[in-house]
Amino acid sequence: MYHATIVVTLRHSILDPQGKAVEHAIHSLSAGRVSNVRIGKQIQCAIDAPSRTEAAGIADTICKKLLANPVMEDYTVTIEERA
Amino acid sequence: MYHATIVVTLRHSILDPQGKAVEHAIHSLSAGRVSNVRIGKQIQCAIDAPSRTEAAGIADTICKKLLANPVMEDYTVTIEERA
Repeated sequence: MYHATIVVTLRHSILDPQGKAVEHAIHSLSAGRVSNVRIGKQIQCAIDAPSRTEAAGIADTICKKLLANPVMEDYTVTIEERA
Repeated sequence: MYHATIVVTLRHSILDPQGKAVEHAIHSLSAGRVSNVRIGKQIQCAIDAPSRTEAAGIADTICKKLLANPVMEDYTVTIEERA
């Protein structure tokens, strides 16, 4: 059993209005000099596969087909083995 | 200048309907035996602070006041130094 952590983020060249809104909210809290806020999604799941390579392949497939929009978003996959 | 990566996730005891919906979608793709899908938010930002401790303090403040709902959500903060 493997545990996958997938992070989907907007590409750097794409404007992130949600991040901009959060940045303005942080400034109105006077919480400190925070800039360049960007917001992404983190998906965690358990994958039942015979090997780490197959688990990574499954994670890659679900990213490409479902979780990420390859035109606008990048994704990273981290696979950990779990007992 | 520090770079903060904040991950906000629902507590384990709280149902994650968004994760359940994604899990059903993965099953309908027949992409593999994927279970226990949970979805969180990842926030990346640059923090201008004199020390790592102060940067971590600022990140903690914005999590508590703005980004996370402490009743339902947990958060982790990772601080990296950037040139």
